[in-house]
Amino acid sequence: MTLENHAIVLVKRPQGTPTEDCFALVQVQAPEVQTGQVKLRSRYLSVDPYMRARMNEAAHGGRTPFDIGKPLSGGVVAEVVESNSSDLATGDVVLGMLPWQEYSVTNVKSRQKVNSYGQPLSMALGTLGMPGLTAYFGLLDIGQPKAGETVVISGAAGAVGNVVGQIAKLKECRVVGIAGSDAKTDFLKKELHFDSAINYHTAKDLSKAVADTCPDGLNIYFDNVGGVVSDAVLLHLAQHARIPVCGQISQYNLEKPEMGPRVAPFLLRSHAMMQGFLQSEYSHRFAEALPQLAAWVKEGKLKNVETVADGLAATPAAFIGLFHGKNLGKQVVKVA
Amino acid sequence: MTLENHAIVLVKRPQGTPTEDCFALVQVQAPEVQTGQVKLRSRYLSVDPYMRARMNEAAHGGRTPFDIGKPLSGGVVAEVVESNSSDLATGDVVLGMLPWQEYSVTNVKSRQKVNSYGQPLSMALGTLGMPGLTAYFGLLDIGQPKAGETVVISGAAGAVGNVVGQIAKLKECRVVGIAGSDAKTDFLKKELHFDSAINYHTAKDLSKAVADTCPDGLNIYFDNVGGVVSDAVLLHLAQHARIPVCGQISQYNLEKPEMGPRVAPFLLRSHAMMQGFLQSEYSHRFAEALPQLAAWVKEGKLKNVETVADGLAATPAAFIGLFHGKNLGKQVVKVA
Repeated sequence: MTLENHAIVLVKRPQGTPTEDCFALVQVQAPEVQTGQVKLRSRYLSVDPYMRARMNEAAHGGRTPFDIGKPLSGGVVAEVVESNSSDLATGDVVLGMLPWQEYSVTNVKSRQKVNSYGQPLSMALGTLGMPGLTAYFGLLDIGQPKAGETVVISGAAGAVGNVVGQIAKLKECRVVGIAGSDAKTDFLKKELHFDSAINYHTAKDLSKAVADTCPDGLNIYFDNVGGVVSDAVLLHLAQHARIPVCGQISQYNLEKPEMGPRVAPFLLRSHAMMQGFLQSEYSHRFAEALPQLAAWVKEGKLKNVETVADGLAATPAAFIGLFHGKNLGKQVVKVA
Repeated sequence: MTLENHAIVLVKRPQGTPTEDCFALVQVQAPEVQTGQVKLRSRYLSVDPYMRARMNEAAHGGRTPFDIGKPLSGGVVAEVVESNSSDLATGDVVLGMLPWQEYSVTNVKSRQKVNSYGQPLSMALGTLGMPGLTAYFGLLDIGQPKAGETVVISGAAGAVGNVVGQIAKLKECRVVGIAGSDAKTDFLKKELHFDSAINYHTAKDLSKAVADTCPDGLNIYFDNVGGVVSDAVLLHLAQHARIPVCGQISQYNLEKPEMGPRVAPFLLRSHAMMQGFLQSEYSHRFAEALPQLAAWVKEGKLKNVETVADGLAATPAAFIGLFHGKNLGKQVVKVA
């Protein structure tokens, strides 16, 4: 069986913010399925800010750089359309780090089968996947929220931020979201019941806006963004504040590191703690987190927030859009 | 009984690094000892970098500013010379937050009696006092050192840093000290058996010097200093590094906050944790820490490192000297 097959390849390394000409949709082969392998049809793929670092010649944190001329890869939900493996059958749906292409041949295993908990498949890339797990462990394990505490979230309308805020509300915290448009701040307040939300683009004095919404300071700052947004927030730490550092999207496209106010004196003054983390460090506890997230979704306590782009060809624009705040919630691409 | 009595008062608030003309030695009254009070003769007093913040009009972290024209105050080891209290007797030695003066009348209680563990009294202000406790909890509780790990210490020849390094050696870590003179780095290596020491004043490229001594990165950075020294160290974090932030002496005399490379991206990349702390947060565990520190001293495993200035009049110079790296180990003033 030969199938028409396409992939998104990296044409050149972005300088600063990625542009469409860094990517191309190309026709690729769908190789033969060898023993032990399956052929997958991509259903949904995930675009994520962290991928930006892999587009540089020297990626960070042990990640290998993407190769020029080769398909990019990331989280993909895919369906088995041909199996030469005793482990998986046609129709099984799996989640893997897979190339951005319509069909791929791999040796994924049954342990990668998606448990969608009766929800739409795309959620395995969002609230019931990596972003949901990131929110869960970052907030609960590092943030240690207590009822009545104030939680400030940057990138609050993003894939991780919206889940952080909703879980913080479940934990009876006061939740303040920072986002980049009135549509987003309205959504956070009206649909997700955040106590307050700040549009950092229109706030005249972001520090004052944070102070006004957090008169006693903030106990947790869940940081997805970094940069000047964080500069404003860190001025208002309560004693013993916790700062899970999940992402620094404001910094990913910089050609050289940015200077900013030093953080250590603030941590010292407030006896505060700041910790960078990745959800993968908590893989031994996914079996605890995923059923809990799914239960909250089923009970209507955790709303799924996602933006869906249509078709593989839309992937570069969807990825680039992350850096322009185009997405509300998790940005996925529906491939098929 | 009236006694000649002197105090060190704050004459004016320092601009930048304190100078001698900010302080004055003045004659003061020794008030009558009321019921429940004792008269104390100061024996040793402590000068500490944190006091700099209290010399500003608006002090930080809940600390009250020192008053102009009034005696400064800090940690003092003093002997009861007259008692009108059933709680303390003449000859008892206490430790308290007391004025920088020869004699003072207070209502200190017997719970403040110094246990010197058979060591010289000055050590209650150093290795067996606040700096020792700071080193103990910052390294062991926040740093969580494991045998074979690499520990880098800024301000390594200071009151806290020298104890951190010695405890880290007891925990079988590789210890790298950063200090400001060859005399200090020689001392750290030869007398305290640090594995390596870097003179940040003479290192041509501090980042390279750290990289050369920490080929696999560093697991713990115990930061007493901040500023450009920390900038160089933070480039070389190993995965899951821990950074207890104990002091930021490089920043205390700045007229306005200094800019520096942003820290959050480094924490994210290395899944590292940075935490500001004060030893007073651990007061419920002093009864664990002090006997352990004293046992190490008695066994010869923890050397006492101190610089002693002579006489109350020497206090301002001793305090100012902290910001010029004049002290080796704990700087105290022998008042009587």
